[in-house]
Amino acid sequence: MTVIETVKEMQNISSKLIISGETIGYVPTMGYLHEGHLTLIKKARKENSKVIISIFVNPLQFGPNEDYETYPRNFARDKKLASEAGVDYIFYPSVQEMYPTEMTTNLTVTKRTDVLCGKNRIGHFDGVATVLLKLFSIIRPNRVYFGLKDAQQVAVVDGLIQDFNLPIELCPVETVREEDGLAKSSRNVNLTMPEREEASYLYKSLLEGKRLIESGERNPDVVIAAMNEYLKEHISGEVEYVEIHSFPSLLPLRQLEGKIIIALAVKYSKARLIDNIILNVT
Amino acid sequence: MTVIETVKEMQNISSKLIISGETIGYVPTMGYLHEGHLTLIKKARKENSKVIISIFVNPLQFGPNEDYETYPRNFARDKKLASEAGVDYIFYPSVQEMYPTEMTTNLTVTKRTDVLCGKNRIGHFDGVATVLLKLFSIIRPNRVYFGLKDAQQVAVVDGLIQDFNLPIELCPVETVREEDGLAKSSRNVNLTMPEREEASYLYKSLLEGKRLIESGERNPDVVIAAMNEYLKEHISGEVEYVEIHSFPSLLPLRQLEGKIIIALAVKYSKARLIDNIILNVT
Repeated sequence: MTVIETVKEMQNISSKLIISGETIGYVPTMGYLHEGHLTLIKKARKENSKVIISIFVNPLQFGPNEDYETYPRNFARDKKLASEAGVDYIFYPSVQEMYPTEMTTNLTVTKRTDVLCGKNRIGHFDGVATVLLKLFSIIRPNRVYFGLKDAQQVAVVDGLIQDFNLPIELCPVETVREEDGLAKSSRNVNLTMPEREEASYLYKSLLEGKRLIESGERNPDVVIAAMNEYLKEHISGEVEYVEIHSFPSLLPLRQLEGKIIIALAVKYSKARLIDNIILNVT
Repeated sequence: MTVIETVKEMQNISSKLIISGETIGYVPTMGYLHEGHLTLIKKARKENSKVIISIFVNPLQFGPNEDYETYPRNFARDKKLASEAGVDYIFYPSVQEMYPTEMTTNLTVTKRTDVLCGKNRIGHFDGVATVLLKLFSIIRPNRVYFGLKDAQQVAVVDGLIQDFNLPIELCPVETVREEDGLAKSSRNVNLTMPEREEASYLYKSLLEGKRLIESGERNPDVVIAAMNEYLKEHISGEVEYVEIHSFPSLLPLRQLEGKIIIALAVKYSKARLIDNIILNVT
């Protein structure tokens, strides 16, 4: 496994790989790898001849009051995990390397962001789209892997790929969970013990919503109200939202039908957790 | 030579070319090919194993009062000229093919556009950058060729390539001129006879500016005033601007130094002409 720190070197390598007929599976990460990432890497490993991951905590996608500074980092550990998982190259650039000069253009995401996390994280998805467009040009993957835990990110990347005809196959991967159902996340380490214990109820509330829909409920407001009630009973964290939309277009639904997402966000003292499930309602 | 009308087919072909170790030289055009385009194609032909041109009159880069409808089109003629010039593929998509659905993102150009044509063509370069980013993803060129007649476009593309780390070499090519000095342009056909006759004075005024600088003048305002005076004497068209900036950053200059551009735009009854020269001032 090779660690690459400059754009130029990474671009030289990806060009050579492409010309040699290799297929590149790419997993963009912000590091502090956990089983969720390793699942993405495993899938990339199976479907491509070369696997590249990037580790870059992208300042552009953090708001001024968000956790850019405290976002967990541990490159030595990441390197070991990536190597064991069969990664071929880690692209590990500095902020200066990714943003050497002021940009001359501005990319904003205008759809799929007025709901869920986008509503409260102004500019977040602009930062995500910008860094991904750069990383895609640098790594030139055939396939890119994202966890469905960040479902809105998957929806935004789906739009980005379509908008700019990027020659990349988007591969969303099921959320990986702890035994009690909590979605794996780098941010889970910032939970206190009691928070960690009750956090399994986030997923359980999603299953509660799913159960209601499967039993015939088609009014999203009824499902959302029941889930809010359920969360109030079981958790102390502040519920930021419980929402249901079409997926991946993230449009409002009056009646539950087709591919939908049930998603929520909860704020704890030092961590903000998100989770979701995607269903086909027939 | 093959004409390709769909994004999917073009992308399949470029991927195959890349894997086969071919290098792709790309000339984006809006069609109605003239000697300027043919010069770009010849250069691409010399420097790459495959040459692709696109013909697409991009509605996104025309303002509501601009000449999208009247922009000259003649595909049969273009096809013949391209074939004779040794083009391998013409990418010739419909508007529906390029913009099948409403975009989910918005790309704007925030630098290098508050001067020259950008000042009066609000949104023009946003449309140029958007379509080029799409075309670059579809055609995946090693090198892209632009005429320096559209110098601001070259500056904007230079920024776009840097911003998004596009793995493409930008190849600007000297403006091709008629015998009397008029820069070749698809829009020249919209000049009346008397307009066409005097239009050579656009270039002559640029040479006048150059002469002044070479004789020691370093104050841009003095050069601009002299050029305006010269134009007033020789042409009937309305001078939209005469400007001098650094190149390619297009920043204002108090003192002429380094790589600079002298540029102008003139409005005639049914055509708006632009021209420029780029100098190294030592």
